[in-house]
Amino acid sequence: MVLVSPRNPLNIGAVARAMANFGFVRMSVVSPYEPQWREARSAVGAPQLLTDAHEAASLSEAIRDCSLVLGTGTLTHRKAEQPVVSLETLAPLAAEALGRGERIALVFGPEKHGLTREDLSYCHALVEIPTDPHQPSMNLGQAAAVCLYELATRVGPSNPGSGIATAQIDLDVKNPVTSNASEPAPTSGKLDILAGLIEQVMQATNYSPKLMQQANRHDIRLMLRRLHLNAADSRRALGLFRRILWRLKLPPP
Amino acid sequence: MVLVSPRNPLNIGAVARAMANFGFVRMSVVSPYEPQWREARSAVGAPQLLTDAHEAASLSEAIRDCSLVLGTGTLTHRKAEQPVVSLETLAPLAAEALGRGERIALVFGPEKHGLTREDLSYCHALVEIPTDPHQPSMNLGQAAAVCLYELATRVGPSNPGSGIATAQIDLDVKNPVTSNASEPAPTSGKLDILAGLIEQVMQATNYSPKLMQQANRHDIRLMLRRLHLNAADSRRALGLFRRILWRLKLPPP
Repeated sequence: MVLVSPRNPLNIGAVARAMANFGFVRMSVVSPYEPQWREARSAVGAPQLLTDAHEAASLSEAIRDCSLVLGTGTLTHRKAEQPVVSLETLAPLAAEALGRGERIALVFGPEKHGLTREDLSYCHALVEIPTDPHQPSMNLGQAAAVCLYELATRVGPSNPGSGIATAQIDLDVKNPVTSNASEPAPTSGKLDILAGLIEQVMQATNYSPKLMQQANRHDIRLMLRRLHLNAADSRRALGLFRRILWRLKLPPP
Repeated sequence: MVLVSPRNPLNIGAVARAMANFGFVRMSVVSPYEPQWREARSAVGAPQLLTDAHEAASLSEAIRDCSLVLGTGTLTHRKAEQPVVSLETLAPLAAEALGRGERIALVFGPEKHGLTREDLSYCHALVEIPTDPHQPSMNLGQAAAVCLYELATRVGPSNPGSGIATAQIDLDVKNPVTSNASEPAPTSGKLDILAGLIEQVMQATNYSPKLMQQANRHDIRLMLRRLHLNAADSRRALGLFRRILWRLKLPPP
């Protein structure tokens, strides 16, 4: 569970409580507002997972070791650049990733505006909670509770419907039960390294003018997630681009 | 949706917001704490359904026209006197009731202690959210959100998974789509009338000593819900007990 710049201590506490209710343990927070973050953390009765929460300077850092990154939000004002999955149909996708031993991150944006377009470019899919069009926007703590309920009850290595038997799935902790022999997909951190190599090659070869660098970076990030590279693909691509840089006499990063 | 003596205006607002998010419209509140109730109701941005909420003096009154009454709560400290249904398996039961054109009530107790044994004696079943045994107790607003999400996405006259197409199910408003020709089960109000008649007969016939009246009343209430009388059963029983009272020369209530 990753919260990007949460602002309301009550909401942070509510998310932590819902995690505890449904047996999830790993929380990361990206550049939270101080002192609200301190307040939430030191609240009486705050669950241990809130005290243990990881603080990250960027979303990229927070999800470095995750291979399936799920953004959340409503789509009233924009078109998504990545696939949209309705929450109640998410289970098979998440179960498959866990089956390969991958780590999953569920990312929530700030209360007011949600995740930015840049945040979303790190996500493989956007999870949509099927809310009423007249009142689509949910409270952060409630949206988290609904998502965690769905994951806890309908995703799991054991039998569906067994509910809390899936408590081991703690979003960000590798699932020890690997039902599928195939290798985990590359983590977000690995994709960032590959994207960096590609960008270097683009610059070294004068592929794109300076003006386009920002836009290209965004597009490559999106593309790498859309491609669903497997472990071998990513190794091959990393090797190839390192080799290209070497031939161009540029040091690898 | 029925809230019994809610205390925290933020929680009341959160429940109302979750109802709006998932397309539910009828809220009833049983003996709420003033002025917290006024505060919640007059909050900026409060959804219309909160302004329109019905205030009842008792749970019995609030659920009078409902034929399937679902209590909520955790069972850590007591044994339920009625069937317990796990939330993720509730859909078929609710769909069946709606199919018969019945009204469903989902009842939440006060934040601190939940529903009392007496409140629960009005419920046909106790819905349990499958939470972690280490942290079973959920925040009111989050518990409501999770229950409403489950009902909105997995119960409906139309195809399951269609999400918001089920927004017409508004908990307490009769579903116009009657897929099943059978008559709706008796409402809670009807069962209360029957229970009153039975109690009168018990007293008139000296069935039970005065000391036992309270306990008997509780047991009859529970029993009438457990029996799942259909419309004809309830008509027959009402007729019979009225007749008995008449023969005993007592006026019917």
